[in-house]
Amino acid sequence: MYKLVLVRHGESQWNKENRFTGWTDIDLSERGIKEAKEAGKILKENGFSFRYGYTSYLKRAIKTLNYILEEMDELWIPVEKTWRLNEKHYGTLQGLNKRETAEKYGDEKVLLWRRSFDVPPPSLPITDERHPGNSIRYQLANAKDATPDTEALKDTINRIIPYWKDNIVPTLKAHKEVIIGAHGNSLRAIVKYVKNISNEDIISLNLPTGIPYVFIFDEAMNLQKDYFLADEATLKALMEEVANQAKK
Amino acid sequence: MYKLVLVRHGESQWNKENRFTGWTDIDLSERGIKEAKEAGKILKENGFSFRYGYTSYLKRAIKTLNYILEEMDELWIPVEKTWRLNEKHYGTLQGLNKRETAEKYGDEKVLLWRRSFDVPPPSLPITDERHPGNSIRYQLANAKDATPDTEALKDTINRIIPYWKDNIVPTLKAHKEVIIGAHGNSLRAIVKYVKNISNEDIISLNLPTGIPYVFIFDEAMNLQKDYFLADEATLKALMEEVANQAKK
Repeated sequence: MYKLVLVRHGESQWNKENRFTGWTDIDLSERGIKEAKEAGKILKENGFSFRYGYTSYLKRAIKTLNYILEEMDELWIPVEKTWRLNEKHYGTLQGLNKRETAEKYGDEKVLLWRRSFDVPPPSLPITDERHPGNSIRYQLANAKDATPDTEALKDTINRIIPYWKDNIVPTLKAHKEVIIGAHGNSLRAIVKYVKNISNEDIISLNLPTGIPYVFIFDEAMNLQKDYFLADEATLKALMEEVANQAKK
Repeated sequence: MYKLVLVRHGESQWNKENRFTGWTDIDLSERGIKEAKEAGKILKENGFSFRYGYTSYLKRAIKTLNYILEEMDELWIPVEKTWRLNEKHYGTLQGLNKRETAEKYGDEKVLLWRRSFDVPPPSLPITDERHPGNSIRYQLANAKDATPDTEALKDTINRIIPYWKDNIVPTLKAHKEVIIGAHGNSLRAIVKYVKNISNEDIISLNLPTGIPYVFIFDEAMNLQKDYFLADEATLKALMEEVANQAKK
């Protein structure tokens, strides 16, 4: 039996300010730190004990994982960082306020960029200092996918699935209990693949921040069950949130 | 040209309480956190930019490195953790107050255990819960050296040098700029080897906590120079401390 736990990072400074973040390396807010520590506490209380961790190249995910492991007294486990687990790249939208962007381009366009499976936001030119091609951390990766101009969810998924197959699955088989601290869209990619969710349905799957999402696989990597790890009050609030989202 | 930087972790809770720590996994004190952040700041100001990090299995070293990398905005670099960079194991002395231990066993005996090259403190029996053989993190290493009963400095050096040769040196050659966040005695092992210091002289080398110790090597791994990275006031205080130690 293999246990995989996905955790979406807690609130960042730009979540608070309602700005598109993508690959911008924004820190956790105080609330985000608290969410991460809570996740660590509930994982520990429920007897989880990880042997390997994965995270992205972005500090809000790295620090979320570090706070979790610190709460669990498992800071010593190996942690692999990869740009492949980064958030979806938001092109020229990165840094813009979501409301202002909607006023400028119209609600419909912004919703499309945010929620379409295969329509990416406008491309960032390489001359823009925000372009990942201008950052040593992505240049070093020496891979075209590591320096995108923009990404649709489809592109995010395409850069993650090879890493899932070639790297994370073998680690899960070897180490049995693995945690991934990452982002809304990079975790969607994994959930889509593992649960075989359609291109249409994956768009409306919203993972809650800071709530461990547990996947149990058998020896042949068949998914046995998946569930969110939270106390009853939190789970109830999450259900209501999902129900309200469906009403919109 | 290769750059290696060694940083001894900042003050821990047990440094404050004057207790033997060794492999006990004690957290940094507030002052220790401040020391680590200062180290990160001065490294950044001096243009260092790391491509790879190493640390031990102990949180006071792991967190020191994390605070440094966070200050440098380099949390994304790969960091390898290894029990081989752990502090010297202090056997049955771990957890004891240094003054009380001196009263019990006599100053001479305690000085021998602390400072002898090849006389280890009394062995911890495997039945003692403090023994590393009872901890999953060392059991997993599946190596006899990973579960010592006690260690003299000689033993600490013997478990580190193979790792230095087989792992750290190749990484330094490949990545050019490497940082190690570790402990007084595990860093002594590296300094002894790199500077070819005698068994007698290494005992009196006291590395200051939280001060980056820079080593510059040429392509053939010949040491070109080594120096502490600190502002003038700190360096002066360090020199005086060393001078006073020599006077004792």
